[in-house]
Amino acid sequence: MKMSHLIGERFKERPADCVIDSHALMVRGGYMKYVANGIYASYPPLRRITRKIEQIIREEMDALGGQEVSMPVVLPASYWQQSGRYDTVGDELLRFFDRNEASLVLGMTHEEAAVELVREYGGSYAKYPFFIYQIQTKFRDERRPRGGLIRVREFTMKDGYSFHTSQADLEQFYDACLKAYHRIFQRVGLPEVVSVASDSGMMGGDISHEFMLLTPVGEDSIAICESCGYRANVETAPCVAIPTAQAAPAPLQAVPTPGMHTIEEVCSFLQVPQSQTCKAVAYQQEGDGGLVVVFLRGDLEVNESKLTGYLGCGIRPAALTESSGLCAGFIGPYRLQADCTVLYDASLQNAVNLVCGGNQSDMHYTGLSFERDIGPVTFHDFAKATEGGICPHCGQAGLHIRRGIEVGNIFQLGDKYTRAMQMQYVDAQGESHYPLMGCYGIGVGRLAASVCEAHHDENGPIWPVSIAPWQVHLCAVRAAKEEVANLADSLYHNMQKAGIEVLYDDRPVSAGVMFADADLIGVPLRVVVSPRGCKEGTVELAARDKSFCSRVEISGAMDEIQRLLESMRAGCAAQ
Amino acid sequence: MKMSHLIGERFKERPADCVIDSHALMVRGGYMKYVANGIYASYPPLRRITRKIEQIIREEMDALGGQEVSMPVVLPASYWQQSGRYDTVGDELLRFFDRNEASLVLGMTHEEAAVELVREYGGSYAKYPFFIYQIQTKFRDERRPRGGLIRVREFTMKDGYSFHTSQADLEQFYDACLKAYHRIFQRVGLPEVVSVASDSGMMGGDISHEFMLLTPVGEDSIAICESCGYRANVETAPCVAIPTAQAAPAPLQAVPTPGMHTIEEVCSFLQVPQSQTCKAVAYQQEGDGGLVVVFLRGDLEVNESKLTGYLGCGIRPAALTESSGLCAGFIGPYRLQADCTVLYDASLQNAVNLVCGGNQSDMHYTGLSFERDIGPVTFHDFAKATEGGICPHCGQAGLHIRRGIEVGNIFQLGDKYTRAMQMQYVDAQGESHYPLMGCYGIGVGRLAASVCEAHHDENGPIWPVSIAPWQVHLCAVRAAKEEVANLADSLYHNMQKAGIEVLYDDRPVSAGVMFADADLIGVPLRVVVSPRGCKEGTVELAARDKSFCSRVEISGAMDEIQRLLESMRAGCAAQ
Repeated sequence: MKMSHLIGERFKERPADCVIDSHALMVRGGYMKYVANGIYASYPPLRRITRKIEQIIREEMDALGGQEVSMPVVLPASYWQQSGRYDTVGDELLRFFDRNEASLVLGMTHEEAAVELVREYGGSYAKYPFFIYQIQTKFRDERRPRGGLIRVREFTMKDGYSFHTSQADLEQFYDACLKAYHRIFQRVGLPEVVSVASDSGMMGGDISHEFMLLTPVGEDSIAICESCGYRANVETAPCVAIPTAQAAPAPLQAVPTPGMHTIEEVCSFLQVPQSQTCKAVAYQQEGDGGLVVVFLRGDLEVNESKLTGYLGCGIRPAALTESSGLCAGFIGPYRLQADCTVLYDASLQNAVNLVCGGNQSDMHYTGLSFERDIGPVTFHDFAKATEGGICPHCGQAGLHIRRGIEVGNIFQLGDKYTRAMQMQYVDAQGESHYPLMGCYGIGVGRLAASVCEAHHDENGPIWPVSIAPWQVHLCAVRAAKEEVANLADSLYHNMQKAGIEVLYDDRPVSAGVMFADADLIGVPLRVVVSPRGCKEGTVELAARDKSFCSRVEISGAMDEIQRLLESMRAGCAAQ
Repeated sequence: MKMSHLIGERFKERPADCVIDSHALMVRGGYMKYVANGIYASYPPLRRITRKIEQIIREEMDALGGQEVSMPVVLPASYWQQSGRYDTVGDELLRFFDRNEASLVLGMTHEEAAVELVREYGGSYAKYPFFIYQIQTKFRDERRPRGGLIRVREFTMKDGYSFHTSQADLEQFYDACLKAYHRIFQRVGLPEVVSVASDSGMMGGDISHEFMLLTPVGEDSIAICESCGYRANVETAPCVAIPTAQAAPAPLQAVPTPGMHTIEEVCSFLQVPQSQTCKAVAYQQEGDGGLVVVFLRGDLEVNESKLTGYLGCGIRPAALTESSGLCAGFIGPYRLQADCTVLYDASLQNAVNLVCGGNQSDMHYTGLSFERDIGPVTFHDFAKATEGGICPHCGQAGLHIRRGIEVGNIFQLGDKYTRAMQMQYVDAQGESHYPLMGCYGIGVGRLAASVCEAHHDENGPIWPVSIAPWQVHLCAVRAAKEEVANLADSLYHNMQKAGIEVLYDDRPVSAGVMFADADLIGVPLRVVVSPRGCKEGTVELAARDKSFCSRVEISGAMDEIQRLLESMRAGCAAQ
């Protein structure tokens, strides 16, 4: 491929609407173009990258015994009605009607379609286990697309679905798939991706893992314990608060706190740390609008994933009116009289001498001892794990909270879908059962962007050789000179003959422009033919990641190029 | 791949809802599953076939200098508003709204998106010509999906878009693409596909070709002249009617034709051939509902594509009321008094002694001579070319009308889209121009079904080796016998080692079931290991197309398999 023919434009300025580096570089480098909110088109370099990623995923899925199928983008609403998700999933599921007023949706995930596809095939236990996958376009009507390809509305995804007759078999396959995912991330050049326990959310099931690229620009938070290796999405990580110092219980006492609505104001006024308070956070349930008050230690935050999981429905911040019986800013657990669901976070268990709201304006209590003053209540874990907190696995303090981009996820779904959709198999004894399912996703475009996010410098992406749009970027500096053109042409042809993917820049532009473009395209090995090199009888070989830059004799150039590429490939091999 | 693990089910009965053979066989053979009207999912055998077709298409597009891109399935309505097609295209364009009430469409073709993708890149003449393509999901809300994968609503399509600065350059590329298309059809095993001149319809532009697989089950009609090689879709083929015998003009005379509403009744009653009549066909224009009456010779049919092309708007059959002034069944050109557009087909030019309607109930005229009785009017070609008619190219009688499935199409679009969307380039003199475009489509699933339609027997598809889901179908008959299992296993491993794609049937089923399944899967070469063969020291090699069936010594089996596959591959090579 000659650079002079490459579709797409490159430019220097960072686009104003790009918040993260990968987005900015992939726009600047002619990889992608904005079409609509959260919808992009791909130029050839990105399409070449995604095809390579797809092929790596396909190979690993095939190695697991996966069979590639294809399910539609447009699905009948009836599929989602059968599973119940037509009603439970929010506006991310794009619902619409065709010319005959048939109710359709754009597939955002394909559990229902997978069940329908194998319903008859999976009628006998003898067919199990089996695993199907596809690499296909999905649409999720995200409220807030962001970060270029990190969170889009239309995306290409590998989604796989396994079917089993026992939990043990599901778990065995799940573990194999987890390992295959790590091989995929290794092979695309992201060995640093970690798997973390996660919340299953709308997918259902009990056990699930996310694969996270740890990076400050990620939108997920992950709790990591360096002592024992525990890792979990903060959505699901239990919060074990460091207990506050215990003292003899003081008496409960009302104190005036005029105009002190926030925890900060109260703590500052009463000269207590936030961990010595009991704060209230009020929500309303989606649907009936019923009020929910969660009490938790003042230095912690409510984990809304845990709360919605506990309640079994969505929530929104409460709009408190006078009639609610809740006094905004002054809600406390002592003598609370309001028509609401009251929940207590585990951080309050055995707590003494707390400050809490007085359930009337401008009044708080001090000296609240939970057991003495509130009586026997049930505590649950509703709080977010915190930086420096206690690891729920090994009990050591010093949990770290890191940001991450989710580049894949896997779920043990159990029989959620097969039961809801009444798919059964007959076992050897002639009895009917619901098969168990697992599902396994990787977003292709997001993975490409994540590689860029993890591997770039200020000048452009640094693509691993396994997914780079080309393997070699051949620069003919001052190609108007015959000796330069001749040598570059001959290298171009020899590399192509050797099966190397080469992008050949023979444009009459300055070396500065040429190298800036090469940096943006991020091909791992650069080969430079220049007048000076021709005179000396050498070409320059340089790594995009700056790990080496050397001149080699022209006669040995091809061998050296092959050797360097081979060693780069070894770096991306699965272990 | 072992047959015992292959997802999907095969069965004997022809499904009642399948009208054409390819649909029936691909359902019976476990290739596809109905999801919704015109929407199907693919099982592994079909996915393997479509991937191979996609790869052949990709190679031929790359050989033309094509660069693969990816444009979204979901497009903003604004793209289609810019080109004007948001209003002119009918309900096939599925329009909907997202959660923020933004107006979107499902892409059914991507001319607008292609213009947007290269708008900036194509700003200078120096970048031209260039050619982009994608292989991607499309949705067209067809009123009447039919024939399984032949006419669906959701489909995978290769669509390409070329950009040029001169008509000569567009034509040169168009011709190269036409040749590449013939190579593609050759390589997928459909060398019999012919290219025919076609009507550009909603795409716009003047010159276009369709690629047709001639088959009685096709939904298109193609006019073919065997004398000169002329071929055109009947939608666009000029109709040159064979003139009727001329006689001296008789006087115009009103004759009673009580209750004779149809051309057949009138001809039978008056004892004249249909070619000696002038019939009327009435339409209403979409939009204002204005009446249109087309007069043409009684033995011809109106070609509605030509009519809508002439009128510049859609039409529907007229609902004639008394107030229209048109007397249904008795409409004639003589003294017609009605508020309608009157059009005359070229078949009536110079015609004499015709029978025509009398514009009142139960009355016709005989002896109509057009020039004498109607006066000077303009004639246009509104009739369908007919079997046995005159070739518009060489003038010989004997045109054939054949049915065909359209497996691809190419269009010279000119500047229709670039002008409407204001995409311009600057030439060497600094002047701005609209680039010229071509577009080039192939439906992947339809092509797979067409291969099946052209190459099958009553037992199943006969896939060409180039796109077959596997190359060899290995049958171990009575695999419970150790010698059979051992030999089959060893052949399986040796073939896999040699890079041959093998489907290995080691199930404990009868030879009858095994061979029936093999016929449905349609793999070109069958290798049968049986107890008898083991005793004799032979295996059986049989072609799915029945061109050979022989026993070879076990020791020479691998060589013979390789040789047979090689010769099959040569049969699918592009010329």
